[in-house]
Formats: sequence, C-alpha cells, structure tokens
Amino acid sequence: MRVYYGYTGLVAELLASRGIKPGDIVTLVLKDNTILHGILMPRPVIYSTSQAIIIKLENGYNIGVRVDKVLDIQLVEARSAGKSLITSKTAHMGGDLPRVTLISTGGTIASKVDYETGAVTPALSVDEITEWIPELREIALIDVKELMSIFSEDMTPQHWGHIAENVYREITSGVSGVIVAHGTDTMTYTASALAFAIQNKPVPVVFVGSQRSSDRPSTDAVFNLISAFLVAARAPFAESVITMHATPSDPYTLVHRGVKTRKMHTSRRDAFQSINDIPIARVDPIKREIRITGRIFEYRDPSKTPTLRGKFDEKVVLIKAYPGIQEEIIDFLVDKGFHGIIIEGTGLGHIANRVIDSIRRAVENNIPVVMTSQCLFGHVNMNVYSTGRRLLEAGVIPGGDMLPEVAYVKLSWILGSLTRDVKEVKEWMTRNLVGELNERHSLKLYPRWPHE
Amino acid sequence: MRVYYGYTGLVAELLASRGIKPGDIVTLVLKDNTILHGILMPRPVIYSTSQAIIIKLENGYNIGVRVDKVLDIQLVEARSAGKSLITSKTAHMGGDLPRVTLISTGGTIASKVDYETGAVTPALSVDEITEWIPELREIALIDVKELMSIFSEDMTPQHWGHIAENVYREITSGVSGVIVAHGTDTMTYTASALAFAIQNKPVPVVFVGSQRSSDRPSTDAVFNLISAFLVAARAPFAESVITMHATPSDPYTLVHRGVKTRKMHTSRRDAFQSINDIPIARVDPIKREIRITGRIFEYRDPSKTPTLRGKFDEKVVLIKAYPGIQEEIIDFLVDKGFHGIIIEGTGLGHIANRVIDSIRRAVENNIPVVMTSQCLFGHVNMNVYSTGRRLLEAGVIPGGDMLPEVAYVKLSWILGSLTRDVKEVKEWMTRNLVGELNERHSLKLYPRWPHE
Repeated sequence: MRVYYGYTGLVAELLASRGIKPGDIVTLVLKDNTILHGILMPRPVIYSTSQAIIIKLENGYNIGVRVDKVLDIQLVEARSAGKSLITSKTAHMGGDLPRVTLISTGGTIASKVDYETGAVTPALSVDEITEWIPELREIALIDVKELMSIFSEDMTPQHWGHIAENVYREITSGVSGVIVAHGTDTMTYTASALAFAIQNKPVPVVFVGSQRSSDRPSTDAVFNLISAFLVAARAPFAESVITMHATPSDPYTLVHRGVKTRKMHTSRRDAFQSINDIPIARVDPIKREIRITGRIFEYRDPSKTPTLRGKFDEKVVLIKAYPGIQEEIIDFLVDKGFHGIIIEGTGLGHIANRVIDSIRRAVENNIPVVMTSQCLFGHVNMNVYSTGRRLLEAGVIPGGDMLPEVAYVKLSWILGSLTRDVKEVKEWMTRNLVGELNERHSLKLYPRWPHE
Repeated sequence: MRVYYGYTGLVAELLASRGIKPGDIVTLVLKDNTILHGILMPRPVIYSTSQAIIIKLENGYNIGVRVDKVLDIQLVEARSAGKSLITSKTAHMGGDLPRVTLISTGGTIASKVDYETGAVTPALSVDEITEWIPELREIALIDVKELMSIFSEDMTPQHWGHIAENVYREITSGVSGVIVAHGTDTMTYTASALAFAIQNKPVPVVFVGSQRSSDRPSTDAVFNLISAFLVAARAPFAESVITMHATPSDPYTLVHRGVKTRKMHTSRRDAFQSINDIPIARVDPIKREIRITGRIFEYRDPSKTPTLRGKFDEKVVLIKAYPGIQEEIIDFLVDKGFHGIIIEGTGLGHIANRVIDSIRRAVENNIPVVMTSQCLFGHVNMNVYSTGRRLLEAGVIPGGDMLPEVAYVKLSWILGSLTRDVKEVKEWMTRNLVGELNERHSLKLYPRWPHE
C-alpha cells in the first residue's frame, strides 16, 4: 500500500499525481460544486483507514472531505516545497524568535490515540507539530520534549513533581516560556501543582490540551496550540496558566490562572472556565493578539530566579461531604496514618455535626483538615453558623475561596515541600501564595445562568 | 422592659405612642430627610437587642432603620387593626383558597438562629408566618407542621424517609401542595430524595429556604416563601421542586427541578441553579404570576394516586476522584461491607486506571459502582477512551448527566426501596424516573461565564 505523507489509497494517488504536499495551499473542488480553500494537512498514518483529505480552512478549523466527494484538487501555492524551504524560513527569523519548549505528557492533544484499540502512540515531534501547524515556526523556535505519555486521569502527585523538575530545567535554560501538553481531565490539578512547585517564575508555564482529537474536523487542538505558543513566547505575565477554547463559536482562546480554573463540562471545547476569578487574558490565534482581561499576579521578568520545591505528599485525601457521610471513613484515614484531609463541605463550609469528633481526632493526630465548599463559587465562612464555629474549634482550617481541587494540591505541596507541623500548615494554607486566594469577589464573577 | 410586638425600648415607646402595629402601612421620616414608605414588620424578640424599626418596602425587601436616625413615624393605613380584620378577610376568601401545608425542618428560613450563641429556637407557627407575611393569607389556607429543627448539614437519608412519610400523609389528606422549609446546605439532596420516594404525585412538593436570615434587611425569605406558596397552591406541575431567588437584583424567583439543581454559591441569594436543565418556571411574587419556562415532567392532577417508597440505604458512599486517590480507600469500603459507591470522576467519567482492580472487586462483591463527573455539566461517556471502556468492563454503571449528588440519592433510594441486585440496580440507575436524566442538551444549557 502506498503511503504518501500519511495518506493512503485513492487519496495518496490523487495527491501524488498532482505533486501536492502537506503545507501547500490548495483548492478542493467537490462534486456538489462546493469549493474549499485551505492548507493541506498531513494525515497521521494511524487515522488513514478513512479515505479523506484534511485541509485547514482560513478560520483555523480542520475539515475532512471524503475522497469520493472530491472532483478535483488544485495546487494554489506550493508552500511546502520540501523541508529546506521551511527550515530556511525558520532560520531566517530565528534570530528574533523567542525559544519555547513544549513538554508533552500525553492526553488527546499530544498523543495519537487509536479509538479502536485504545492504544496511545508517542507524542508529537518537532517535525510533526510544525508540519501540522506551520505558523508555529513564525511564533517561536520550538523544542519538544516527550516526558511521558499517559492519560491525565492516571497522573499522580509524583508525576507533578517530575513535570515540575523538567519545567524548571527548561526555565533555567533560558527559554521564553514552557508549554505543557496535558490531558484535560486533571489538567487543572497539574497546573495548580506547577504554580506552587515553581515560584518566582521569570516566564510563563502554559498548559494546553484539546477536547476533540486532532483527527476530527472540529478539533480545538490547532487554535489552542497556536494560542499556547503565543502566550509562552510573548505574554507579559509569568504564571502557571491554562490556555483553552473560550466559546463554542468564536475563534479565540482564554488564558486562565491554573489555581482558579475548573473543567466544567465533560465534552465542550469551552469546558475550562475560571472560578472565583476572571481569565487573565484573551488570545486571538489568527491575529496573534494577547489582550489582558484580568489581574496579573506575577509579571514576566527574565531576571527573576525561580525556586523549585517540587515534592508532593501522596498521603493526602479529598473527601466530599454528603448527608449520609460515615464517620468511620474519617476514622479509617486517621488510623491508617494519612497525612492530610481536604473536605469538600456544604454551603459556607459545613459537614454533619456527628462527624466533628472524628475530625477533631484527626487534627489531634497531627493531620491537618481543610474545609472548602462544594458550591465552588464564593468563600467559605465558618463564623456564621454554629456548625462552622464548632469545626473551627476542632482545628479545621478554612479554605477561603479555593476550589477543593486546588486546596488538595496546595496541601499536598505544603506537606511534601514545606512542613508537616499543623500550625505552620494552617499559616501556609490561609496565605495567598500564587493567586489561589481571591478576597475580592465582584457580583460579575458569578456566571449568568441559562434563564437570564 | 416593655415588649411591644417584639419591639423593645425606644422603638416600643415610639410605636405604642402612635398606636402603630405590625402590618400597618407607615411613613418613616428620617433625620436626614429621607422618607421611607412601607409595612411595619413584627420584630422577633430574639433580635430585639438592636434598636431598629423594620419595614417592608414596596419592592418586597425588608429594611431596618436604627431608631436614633428616625425623626418620626406616621400611620398611613391601619391594615393591622387587630387580627380580627385579617382573619375575617381570610375567612371570606377561605372557600376558594387551596390548602397548603408547610412542613418545617429547620434551617435559616424556618428557625430563629441566635448568632451570638448559635442556639436554634423552634420554627415558625402559622400565626408567626402570617403575621410576618400577611399576603400569604390571600394565597392559601395555611397549615404549618414542625417536623424537626435541624441544620441541613445534619440531615441523613433516615431524615429523608421521615420527611417523605410526612409529605405523603399531607398529600393524601388532599392538600393542593406541600412546602418543605429546609436549610440550604443539603436542600438539593432532600429535594431529590422526595422526587424518588414519592412518585406519581398529584400535587407539587416545594422546597424553600433562605440564604439570608429573616432579621436581615436583605433577606430573601419573604420573596421565597410567597413564591413557594404560589407554586404549591397553583402551579400546573406536580414534581419535587426548589423555589429560590433568581438573581441578586430582579425581584423574581425560579422553580428548579429538585433532581437537576445545585447550590452553586456559598452566600448569594441566587445560589441555587439548574444544571443540565433549565428552570421549570419563573415566579413573580409581587404580581403573583407563575410563568412556565422549562419542560414539565409531571403535571398536577388531583386524581393521581401517589406511591410512597421512602426507605434509603445509609451505607452508600460518594467519593471524588483526584490524582492521588488511594485504592486502599475503595478496598476499605468493600471490606467493610458498604452497599454502593458513587464516583465523582474526571472528564467523561474516568478515574486512575490503577484503582480499576479495586472497583472490579467491589462489583464482584455485589456493590454497585456508579460513575458521574466532577465537571457537573454534560454527560459521562465511557466509550470514548480506553479508561472508560475498562471501567465499563469492570461493571461500572454510567450515570448519564446526573449530578454526583443526585446519583448518590438515587442509588441510596434504589438500594433501600427497590433492590440490591446489581443488574437490577443498573437498570434503575440508567432509566429516567423523575426527570433526573436529560438526554437533550442544547448549547444554551451551559452558563455564560464572566468573560463573555
């Protein structure tokens, strides 16, 4: 079987006969007289069972057209013309271009997942990524490091530490920004981990993923990646951020502060949203513009010296309060010698009064217990009702407006990298370190719901 | 100390000297020449330490004015004129008025909480509630039953059963609707429990609470209660619903389906919002209008015979997936003989692959395991990635678009009232019974976020 830039069968024949290569600008004439204009995309071999031609339209979206619907394909501009041309272009611009390293950890964006078998093949190489999205060469001098290739649901606090060490190494090597390609399921956890593990960052650390895999016409991978490279190369802030699609329609992305973000939808491209904060910036990947929209906690400053404290305690537990919560579960955690407990409480930060004795015992056993709220929006306030006051008396640490997940990461980091002394843990938990606590909530921080 | 309709000290003197009683329409002239016009509210004794006059303004909000700021108070219309007048009015309208029972369980709305000591005093009587909100007499013939007086964080599945039995008794006695006054922390759990426990309802069951206690000028209790009575007395639907403030500004409330609602803010009056659904109705408590805005699952029909199946299994656990989740916690639940596990997974319904063996063991031990998503919005879909498929193979039941909390209540109800056979549990969990599963998600079901 002939394979031509990842294409096979009829498509390979058609493209080879016209001398058209991925990266070329083409006009696709369909049998129903539709005319499509765009850049021919390389077709990863793994998806080549379907006989379709993939082109990237001017709006940045990829579209796949089945070959039996194609009347003709015409070469408009041979932009590919062998790699030498592109390479020399990069070299030409290289002197002015910022260096950006993409660290690939796995997930939909960086891996080729075969949906038939579930097999995950290794992540993108520099060649693959720049062949796929040629404009990245105009934004940065790219280096790609494949650190791991795992689903993000399999990430552990140990992985966070490993990623932190490698990001730190890149930062101290003098790059203008580091991108971490990551599965979306637990991306906010890892972005929070990197916020705490590397502080006083001179440059941004940008997490990026995709909700739709890159073989689908509706993929958000291209826009998200271009945006991530723009932010890594040029943004004026130096925080651990997440760059993802903003809305289902408009072609822009948002930059969220890692410690203030949540994946709020199982499948939408605009699943990632800031909670108790507004996005730091809005990015237009076509115009290549970054517009600041929120508060900046740390500015880009190459003269800063970052600190790495990348140890995370794996014996931290996140439990959710629910009406029938069984105190024996908390007793078990104490008996087993766990190191810290985050409670995702109800309302202003409550849990059933009947479990307070077990919580007190945890604190007495040197296990810090932190209260957050399953409401997600707003602050906990444990001084309003007697349940809250009883929890404070038992030694529970109020989590402010931190998301339960962020409090979990922060506690794991404090216990692993700073201290296991309960009093000191309380001081660190209640102190704003990297923007994770936001005292000021305006009315507009709350979303507008479907009835409004 | 003189106590005059709950008022004491200077305020009591002033009101008594003018012959003004709660319920009267008054004009309050302040020393800064502000003039306020409204209904004098009775002042609960427990709050009487502050020397303030409380009046209800035309917009429905209560405002408290310190007596030292008051120049004069004038009687405009003696609407109170002794209880006989109001009573005769009620009696006059009584023949046409629907009967509504308010079952009080505790919480901010139904209890008088002393914030100094944390003491909770018993809930409202019929006299107290109608003295406080006289217009309720025009909406319904009211009966009040004080069932319990507890903070909602202390509610358990046993309490749900107790409430269900009492609501069922009221429904079968022929009332036009039942209101359950409930603390807000776990109101959505109990509203879900009542949706499952009493099916084929002829009339609505309306949960109501307040985010600000009734002694505060900004209280939402009055609006929420008027709306709840309107819904209980007149709404065309017969479901377990929640009636709470809609927005921080506009004076209307929303009716949410109990199984599709979440408390999404720790303190705002508009904390309650529909998730993966839109509110059933919008209520204007001033114009006394109910406007249907969403899908109705069950219509009001007094000829229907309700079924009561009010047993809930207390040995159900809700656990949240997080990157460091320890498999020994699941092993512990299995070893201890728990009856069911809800997982609040990541993304489309995932958890770390390393814990799947423990999950398989749970299912093999006749413990149903249900997967939901911490994203909250959207459906789980466990056929997209290999982790999901492995979980399905292990016997995990996909939770559709159910909120984790609702799946928890539903599983507790199925195990307590229907069956403990894992196969049958799966059938019940994946079947839509009372509107808890919503296949159709339009784009507009997702909120608009602060950046939009």
